[in-house]
Amino acid sequence: MPKAKAGKSGPASPIGIFDSGIGGLTVFREIRKKLPREKLVYFGDTARVPYGTKSKETIIKFAGEIALFLKSLKVKMIVIACNTVSSFALEEVKRISGVPVAGVIEPGAGAAVEASENGKIIVIGTSATISSHSYKKTIKKAAPGSEVFEKACPLFVPLVEEGWCSRHPSRLIVREYLSGFKGKKYDTIILGCTHYPLLKKLIRRELPGLKIIDSARATAEEVASMLSKTGMLNKKGKGGAAFIVSDAPGKFRKLGRELLGLKISKIDVKRF
Amino acid sequence: MPKAKAGKSGPASPIGIFDSGIGGLTVFREIRKKLPREKLVYFGDTARVPYGTKSKETIIKFAGEIALFLKSLKVKMIVIACNTVSSFALEEVKRISGVPVAGVIEPGAGAAVEASENGKIIVIGTSATISSHSYKKTIKKAAPGSEVFEKACPLFVPLVEEGWCSRHPSRLIVREYLSGFKGKKYDTIILGCTHYPLLKKLIRRELPGLKIIDSARATAEEVASMLSKTGMLNKKGKGGAAFIVSDAPGKFRKLGRELLGLKISKIDVKRF
Repeated sequence: MPKAKAGKSGPASPIGIFDSGIGGLTVFREIRKKLPREKLVYFGDTARVPYGTKSKETIIKFAGEIALFLKSLKVKMIVIACNTVSSFALEEVKRISGVPVAGVIEPGAGAAVEASENGKIIVIGTSATISSHSYKKTIKKAAPGSEVFEKACPLFVPLVEEGWCSRHPSRLIVREYLSGFKGKKYDTIILGCTHYPLLKKLIRRELPGLKIIDSARATAEEVASMLSKTGMLNKKGKGGAAFIVSDAPGKFRKLGRELLGLKISKIDVKRF
Repeated sequence: MPKAKAGKSGPASPIGIFDSGIGGLTVFREIRKKLPREKLVYFGDTARVPYGTKSKETIIKFAGEIALFLKSLKVKMIVIACNTVSSFALEEVKRISGVPVAGVIEPGAGAAVEASENGKIIVIGTSATISSHSYKKTIKKAAPGSEVFEKACPLFVPLVEEGWCSRHPSRLIVREYLSGFKGKKYDTIILGCTHYPLLKKLIRRELPGLKIIDSARATAEEVASMLSKTGMLNKKGKGGAAFIVSDAPGKFRKLGRELLGLKISKIDVKRF
């Protein structure tokens, strides 16, 4: 496990990134590309994945425990690389950690508003994220005239966590959830869950022509901007990444390699 | 939450039944049918479901916490209505609770050995249950000449927890997992997960002619026999059931009604 240095965090301190499982690695990958000099610590709560079928209270409790853990590693900021947690527990993570916190909702919503030409936007996500209406509220605030249609796709996370990103039944599950949008006037779809970019090919096949927004890149931009504004960018570091999960590191390594092409050598385990 | 009486448990004390989620209700239903005079307390760990994709260490930790909680309710025995927990944590639950404990593996394996005419048996279950080889070992002990083929079907639990028990994509997922067995000489299949009986129709359609064994009924027999032997049967009670979950009671109630026809009026919440 990465050792924390005594004292306050500074520009050389790591950025903490967390998710319920492997989905947040899509955000991790974009942050690493954008900020190669930063040290990144990724935590995946694989003992309690998935979050998206759980209640607000439980999500806030789990996120608070992780925020406290990342704080103990003296991170300089936290990225909530999970739409469900960003929807419900952004304030709780800020309060508990005492460091700047970036979620994925605002960057994703902003990117969609920018991309859409007719203001008709689909949001797909976990049951919890969709029930929070976090994207809809954020989009309506930025562009009050827009039309937002929300749809929960709760089986997408288990499909990805099993590595079934291009199997035939997965194609049919994608169709089952999305066929109602075919031929409608929406021009943009937000993948409102960090697992969903791994199903992007199947989603594109079902809804060809739509602009597909995932929050990963927009979130990486937001992280860079926040660090820059507060003078906390690491300008001289060599970069690096540490991985911690709450269960089953072998499966995490395997999926990280197979789905994202990441070579993860060392994974620590932290149980709650 | 049901109040525990002071002192030791006796014949009038409740039977504790637990599972990671709603799957164990298939066992609950059989026990209630077999032993209508007993008080039953059902606990579903819906905040941490599913268990079957998690590691041995995590499963033992979660099961130990639940055993301690059921002990505090002064149960007279515990039924582990979950194949994954039965495979890994039977001894731990016995040790921590100090009361008799029934799992689902031995009853299910026994029923399969009895049912099979040619000794060729398929076992399907979660990744964790299958990796433990608990059924194979138990069957081989009872009938050394038998041939056991094990297959993990990790997407079945999320399908059931979403209520997709007869949807078209579910049919294809069942086919994806089971088509390899078609036309082979197996005559019996064990549904080695308490969620799987809810997919029985689809499984029967894919593998017609096979005897389908689920552990629920055999486990209820075992529970009756254990209580009878120790003089702990409740012979005069009026029966009753209490339900406790660690998250999302509304969803639990809805699925209990839709999938199992159970009317559950009151559900308590216990968070870990």
